[in-house]
Amino acid sequence: MTDLLGEKDKTPRTARGERTRRALLSAAAEEFGEKGFHEGSISGITRRAGCALGSFYTYFDSKDDIFRALVADMSGQVRDYVGPRIAQARDGIDAERLGLLSFLEFARSHKEIYRIIDEAEFVDQAAYRTHYESTASRILVRLREAAARGEVSGEPDEIHAWAIMGMNVFLGLRFGVWDDSRPVQEVAAIANALIERGIGSGGRDGNPDNA
Amino acid sequence: MTDLLGEKDKTPRTARGERTRRALLSAAAEEFGEKGFHEGSISGITRRAGCALGSFYTYFDSKDDIFRALVADMSGQVRDYVGPRIAQARDGIDAERLGLLSFLEFARSHKEIYRIIDEAEFVDQAAYRTHYESTASRILVRLREAAARGEVSGEPDEIHAWAIMGMNVFLGLRFGVWDDSRPVQEVAAIANALIERGIGSGGRDGNPDNA
Repeated sequence: MTDLLGEKDKTPRTARGERTRRALLSAAAEEFGEKGFHEGSISGITRRAGCALGSFYTYFDSKDDIFRALVADMSGQVRDYVGPRIAQARDGIDAERLGLLSFLEFARSHKEIYRIIDEAEFVDQAAYRTHYESTASRILVRLREAAARGEVSGEPDEIHAWAIMGMNVFLGLRFGVWDDSRPVQEVAAIANALIERGIGSGGRDGNPDNA
Repeated sequence: MTDLLGEKDKTPRTARGERTRRALLSAAAEEFGEKGFHEGSISGITRRAGCALGSFYTYFDSKDDIFRALVADMSGQVRDYVGPRIAQARDGIDAERLGLLSFLEFARSHKEIYRIIDEAEFVDQAAYRTHYESTASRILVRLREAAARGEVSGEPDEIHAWAIMGMNVFLGLRFGVWDDSRPVQEVAAIANALIERGIGSGGRDGNPDNA
């Protein structure tokens, strides 16, 4: 298959092909997570994946290409891990608590995620922006739905979405990747109390003892 | 002057030397801000600074050395820009509003700051951590002082400090560096309303219309 630019479509067409592509992406997460993009190599990736160099080029064009695919893949992995957990929320504020809680869990078990997404700022600026813009958009959609149900007061703004995402990213770095001594439940509860009183419609009185 | 490791102390000892060192750091901010660490070069820095290669080695040992010095310098520049503005705050919550407001101003006029500090995650992990840990520490000290004056309710926690810093970093990226169409006053006011109701002791009722 060839697209309009005359490039071959490298999407796997068999389950076995999909497994090989997935193994290469996991190997790339290890390789770039440990060595970074510049020091990481295609041969390091195929060695970790236990497959031949030819297989690599069946699915990816270059080191840049697999890095770009990896950023999109990790971004999707976060979304797929966090999404179903958020769906169990009591309300729009609880959704943000579960979002942070599950993101902290994800970061603790995928400590390479920061190195990879953050390095995209240098290797592939578009992939970096897309990751954060789509994350912030999902938060804003949730806040607007919560506002429509009367669970969030005032009009949710992009500023709220980026503020909440920024909290999550830095709490994930500090209490997910760097130091996992504090229970994720506790980190999520304290941060969520700030959001609950900050934008919630619950008529709380500003005293955290009542949270 | 030689330190215990036998390395020469390269701190300038004259005003002229200090000016040259400063010119090299400004040139390094441009060079690394535009090209990134890997593509940036010492000759690019000396060309931008209009000084000889020998002058570079009078003040810095290597490309890594000036990068490390640059991260510490930019971290200090933010602190020195934001600090005096925070000192004019009405109270502890207003201090955080002025902190974000002045950081947005700084980011708009120093758009290279993210590329430089963020690249430290890959080039010099210790400098990266130090930048964020010291920023979060300053926020926590301010929150504790505010709590002691009764302006913040509950016990300020590191989690609050990292949450506020994360908000600021992402709002600075989105509304400082990427897009400066929204007034900094507005961004800071909306984010600060979240913090004010979130941790303030003002007995507000959670309705942003009253903020």
